[in-house]
Amino acid sequence: MDGAALTAWLVDTPSVSGDEGPLTDAIEGALRALPHLTVHRDGNAVVARTTLGRPERVILAGHVDTVPVAGNLPSRVEGTRLYGCGTSDMKAGVAVQLRLAAGLASPGRDVTYDCEEVAADRNGLLRLSHNSPELLAGDFAVLMEPSSAEIEGGCQGTLRAEIMVAGQRAHTARSWMGRNAIHDAGAVLDVLRGYTPREPEVDGLRYHEGLNAVGIRGGVAGNVVPDECAVTVNYRFAPDLSGEQAAEYVRSLFPAWPVRILDVADGARPGLGQPAAAEFAAAVGGTPRPKLGWTDVARFSALGIPAVNYGPGISEIAHTPGEYVEMPKIAECEARLRTWLNGS
Amino acid sequence: MDGAALTAWLVDTPSVSGDEGPLTDAIEGALRALPHLTVHRDGNAVVARTTLGRPERVILAGHVDTVPVAGNLPSRVEGTRLYGCGTSDMKAGVAVQLRLAAGLASPGRDVTYDCEEVAADRNGLLRLSHNSPELLAGDFAVLMEPSSAEIEGGCQGTLRAEIMVAGQRAHTARSWMGRNAIHDAGAVLDVLRGYTPREPEVDGLRYHEGLNAVGIRGGVAGNVVPDECAVTVNYRFAPDLSGEQAAEYVRSLFPAWPVRILDVADGARPGLGQPAAAEFAAAVGGTPRPKLGWTDVARFSALGIPAVNYGPGISEIAHTPGEYVEMPKIAECEARLRTWLNGS
Repeated sequence: MDGAALTAWLVDTPSVSGDEGPLTDAIEGALRALPHLTVHRDGNAVVARTTLGRPERVILAGHVDTVPVAGNLPSRVEGTRLYGCGTSDMKAGVAVQLRLAAGLASPGRDVTYDCEEVAADRNGLLRLSHNSPELLAGDFAVLMEPSSAEIEGGCQGTLRAEIMVAGQRAHTARSWMGRNAIHDAGAVLDVLRGYTPREPEVDGLRYHEGLNAVGIRGGVAGNVVPDECAVTVNYRFAPDLSGEQAAEYVRSLFPAWPVRILDVADGARPGLGQPAAAEFAAAVGGTPRPKLGWTDVARFSALGIPAVNYGPGISEIAHTPGEYVEMPKIAECEARLRTWLNGS
Repeated sequence: MDGAALTAWLVDTPSVSGDEGPLTDAIEGALRALPHLTVHRDGNAVVARTTLGRPERVILAGHVDTVPVAGNLPSRVEGTRLYGCGTSDMKAGVAVQLRLAAGLASPGRDVTYDCEEVAADRNGLLRLSHNSPELLAGDFAVLMEPSSAEIEGGCQGTLRAEIMVAGQRAHTARSWMGRNAIHDAGAVLDVLRGYTPREPEVDGLRYHEGLNAVGIRGGVAGNVVPDECAVTVNYRFAPDLSGEQAAEYVRSLFPAWPVRILDVADGARPGLGQPAAAEFAAAVGGTPRPKLGWTDVARFSALGIPAVNYGPGISEIAHTPGEYVEMPKIAECEARLRTWLNGS
């Protein structure tokens, strides 16, 4: 079964987040049949490792769960494309993992294959890093998330904050007795409208930040001057800033109002200067791009493991009913990773 | 029983909106006992009229219902104040109506006493104007709503409109692919922040308009550039504008966006130049003030009857648990109205 056929088989075994059990069982069984791998299962995460005593260990990571099926199963082929739920995100990547795991009995680098579920409240990688950190040891990680078979380095961090503008209630018939918090929130929007995004270069990749209002609410009643208006902003920050620095920056932009940080996720530097990463980039070819969205590479980064995204899927169409993968990209990814893993 | 004692009795017979029946029954009974009045009952509205064939007929109007009791019953006297639910709004006014109705067997002007409920969905005045318009005929009306025993002329109109700002969704990690509707709503807030209220003089009274955001909402998710932001505004307009003109004005302020008019209530000119009103003002004394909030005078105005607010209560403390009325104002209102009604 080639990579495309294996992808189709994986896609036709639905594994919507929360229901990954049967597919994980099948994957575990297939990996356990391979004598050159040691296999570990934790919930719906499966980790399979070569133990050849190589000086370097790399991790190929992926997830088996998908967004809800949207009338796009079973999979179907049209020209060079394989359509269906999870084709791009990321069963094509899992297929490459499994093909490499089965075919590489004695790679030049030790390899850890990690297949898990990613839904936030039961993130397998996070759980493994607590339960069995030794399984995640490694010098470099490749997340096989959709990246159109190009290297996407690092990822930007993300922070959400609420800016609270206060006013004073009054009846609208005598509005000058109060102070309109919604009107005053105009000054917060002025800051957002005047914002110029940073575009710093980090480890050779140019990132592009963003600061956006993602929510606004205010209002008491149709005849009341409102005394509160809350603006929620989302700051996407380049990986040269820590989450703390990002929070400090957002506070500095809105000095006149209380700023409440709702959540922060650190980004990850691309780390492409490190030897394993540089060899990976050379083997794979192309021009690495910065990853703007937040991905699990940040979790590896937090574990001290440089990581990149590299997978055959297409991120732009992930989570859409029309999701597909270009089948030649599956073979291309597999071939290039095989070359790299066979190096030393 | 003087006016203050009668007010206390009315207050101690609770009549929260929807439960005005027992008090209305008592009022109807008292009025029916007076041979110089003809009495009409419609739901919880009671209309009592003298029919002396005088050349002029005036209306004294009031409502018997109150806001919910807030631990402020039974009534209690403290110094010159009578405290309790409905004292100011407006059982003190009803007491004046009833004292005049009982005491003036042969006034110089025919008088229509109108006691009803005002809650919006069962407004007695509106119902009477449909069922028995002849009962509401008159040359001039005095609404005995709380006005601190000063004449409040006319009332401002009120209009609510929703201004919809459109954008284009995008992931916040690539926000430049979209257009942030909340940011763009800053331009709507700019108009509101730059707004200078009109203060036109209408029939000798100077009004003061207001234009306020009373609601704002926008936002799709914490990682999405929002494609919609709705700003709801409330325009309080002087009675030299019709509701249609007010709507036109609001549209003209926001030409770049769709403006949806949610509701409009016309205001009412004070009409203090008309003979009955001028004599009323002379008899009552003081300097008439413009009424900025919307009141039922607008309903009389719509029936072609000039109307003012004049009552012993205090509007600023209406609807508060600490509501009270100054008892001397009850006697003062009654005396001045008696003088006026006895004129010709």
